Amino acid sequence: MTGPLISLLTDFGLTDPSVSACKGVILRIVPDARLLDISHGVTRHAVSEGAALLWAALPYVPAGVHMAVVDPGVGTERRPIALRTGRGDHLVGPDNGLLLPAAERLGGIVSAHVLEHAAYRLAPVSRTFHARDIFAPAAAHIARGVPIDAFGPAVDLASLVRLEIPAPSHVPGCLEASVVLVDAFGNAQLLAERCDLEAAIGPVSSGDRLTVEPADGGRLGNGDSIDLCWRLAYGDAEAGEPLVCLDSYGRLALAVNLGSAAATYDLSSDRRVRIRRS
Amino acid sequence: MTGPLISLLTDFGLTDPSVSACKGVILRIVPDARLLDISHGVTRHAVSEGAALLWAALPYVPAGVHMAVVDPGVGTERRPIALRTGRGDHLVGPDNGLLLPAAERLGGIVSAHVLEHAAYRLAPVSRTFHARDIFAPAAAHIARGVPIDAFGPAVDLASLVRLEIPAPSHVPGCLEASVVLVDAFGNAQLLAERCDLEAAIGPVSSGDRLTVEPADGGRLGNGDSIDLCWRLAYGDAEAGEPLVCLDSYGRLALAVNLGSAAATYDLSSDRRVRIRRS
Amino acid sequence: MTGPLISLLTDFGLTDPSVSACKGVILRIVPDARLLDISHGVTRHAVSEGAALLWAALPYVPAGVHMAVVDPGVGTERRPIALRTGRGDHLVGPDNGLLLPAAERLGGIVSAHVLEHAAYRLAPVSRTFHARDIFAPAAAHIARGVPIDAFGPAVDLASLVRLEIPAPSHVPGCLEASVVLVDAFGNAQLLAERCDLEAAIGPVSSGDRLTVEPADGGRLGNGDSIDLCWRLAYGDAEAGEPLVCLDSYGRLALAVNLGSAAATYDLSSDRRVRIRRS
Repeated sequence: MTGPLISLLTDFGLTDPSVSACKGVILRIVPDARLLDISHGVTRHAVSEGAALLWAALPYVPAGVHMAVVDPGVGTERRPIALRTGRGDHLVGPDNGLLLPAAERLGGIVSAHVLEHAAYRLAPVSRTFHARDIFAPAAAHIARGVPIDAFGPAVDLASLVRLEIPAPSHVPGCLEASVVLVDAFGNAQLLAERCDLEAAIGPVSSGDRLTVEPADGGRLGNGDSIDLCWRLAYGDAEAGEPLVCLDSYGRLALAVNLGSAAATYDLSSDRRVRIRRS
Repeated sequence: MTGPLISLLTDFGLTDPSVSACKGVILRIVPDARLLDISHGVTRHAVSEGAALLWAALPYVPAGVHMAVVDPGVGTERRPIALRTGRGDHLVGPDNGLLLPAAERLGGIVSAHVLEHAAYRLAPVSRTFHARDIFAPAAAHIARGVPIDAFGPAVDLASLVRLEIPAPSHVPGCLEASVVLVDAFGNAQLLAERCDLEAAIGPVSSGDRLTVEPADGGRLGNGDSIDLCWRLAYGDAEAGEPLVCLDSYGRLALAVNLGSAAATYDLSSDRRVRIRRS
Repeated sequence: MTGPLISLLTDFGLTDPSVSACKGVILRIVPDARLLDISHGVTRHAVSEGAALLWAALPYVPAGVHMAVVDPGVGTERRPIALRTGRGDHLVGPDNGLLLPAAERLGGIVSAHVLEHAAYRLAPVSRTFHARDIFAPAAAHIARGVPIDAFGPAVDLASLVRLEIPAPSHVPGCLEASVVLVDAFGNAQLLAERCDLEAAIGPVSSGDRLTVEPADGGRLGNGDSIDLCWRLAYGDAEAGEPLVCLDSYGRLALAVNLGSAAATYDLSSDRRVRIRRS
């Protein structure tokens, strides 16, 4: 018999007692919980970055209870919620858009409830640490079988807060897309797939020459544009050579083989770029 | 049947093999141990910071065996010890004050023993890595049921090394207190509670205007003092506005909403401040 | 009944979804796996540093399946492999030398196979994330009992890629050795043991005065050499005093008591030094 899986994503870092206090709260309620850290290194208060991380990771994680807290509005009026997905997961966190991209990828949202029943919270609830006092106990009680409709009233799914993530757009010959995630190697993931690029510039194959330009008024490192090639893998480029490829999550990525595209070209998750053939 | 809980706190970081070697040693002795990281990001050799972290986290963690190692004196004469608490926990680590604030919060220290029996150590014991060679095996053997009086002679509780943590002091109109912990968001926790502040300046309510001054001869960032308000939650202040509130561990904290009080005002755990009404 | 142990070492860091995606893949195949992080903080693409970390940690870890991925050649021709050791471990990772020093310390390599059977990979396999798509599923299937000869053809052990790690050398009166690992405290581990030093300069005892010089044309911090003593423990030196001692893995280390030898003397894992009596 294996205990229930509870994953955690926060912007708390691993230095202070925040994450361990949450895990302690969970283990007091579900001693045999299997805890899985998704990431605690989300840039603090960066809700859309946390959402992109959850979106990327959770499809590879078994169905379970997933607690995610990037919550600049803690202690204010935003609702604490639990969502149930079509795949059978439960997502627990603030109603600020953090949970939705992942939930939609896990079979869609089947139901949503507000977390307000006092029996499933620590007492007293602090004004500053709902992860420990509301979300961790909720995740634990859901993991031991409490249905989410026991936590509070149903939420109209249309009322859930959504992030405004800039969609890709294209005109003939040019795709415009936004960086949504920078990984540990400095690869910059775009919110765009291969089909988006090919709709703009036609079929691409390895070695096709492309130009990337800023679409947000900024520069790309020291230059006004990047000349690079479409590649199938980072290692297909020379050391230090920039490239565009399909990353391991099925999205376009700007990369530098054995280097950091994010550092070289000042790419962060607020940047927007245009890609065309050279 | 759930395995025994063993938590770990160190100043080793997560990059080198130190933490995983300790965990490996534990799992060789107690294969079904549930391992819980409290933090491995304690500033190195900062015993009082480690003590503040343990104090904050352990009350939320189930009773278990807690190994904590921030040990600038490794290999010298300081005693390796195990403590038993009133709540039923065991704390294992160096006798340098690290364990005491948490132990006293977990029901007080019931008994203490020196860790010296060779049967419960790795052989040979290195002079430089007692966490792996003495503390991890001790934690594991305690978790599998060895009573701490089997490890070595009892320690007179009055002889345990105590940290000198500067207590809050107040004169009418003014509370003086020390920073003991800076969290991941840059909030600076003071070793003082609401009752200490109210004893000095009378009852406070949200929006009361306060002034914070340095009590240690330094400055507070670019200024000589901070004008701020008492708040119930970080989000009750404007973005970038400084505040004093009760943090989630029941202590006073200096914070900046959506910013970092520690960075803005040079607050670290060696600072002491005075708080009065503006 | 305790689940199988699977350890993980990567250069992915803990911020992006890479590590959690790998763990998710493992848990979908072996729900009761006990996951142990060796380190995810290897300097990116630093194969020899990862190898030194595995070498140091794995002897303390129970026999199990150990997945290690530091893989600058991902998506190119390098072989994905699994090794079986004399101690009964399985090591899974790229054939780039990463696994060999540890494997040889765990009883030597008994057999090696290429990981190529499609049934034990995610489909489709990305070109950029073999840790998730090839190595994590392989580790999981091995942990649930699939023998490594089921994954693909045997590898001639003589054909395994080996790192060129510079061995210690000595002439009478002088040992020359390379830094292989810098730990969290800035201690610089040399690839040399006490017997190497004593073969060069005769028996050493605590307090013997030694001189360390660069053997690679560089400097040692602000100086041309370091005057220091042989010590039994860091704390036997004065605060801030440099020393040479035997570290906790049985190798010589350059250290500064309560300081960082790596920072003070610019020691990183590409440095080579000479040690003689002063």
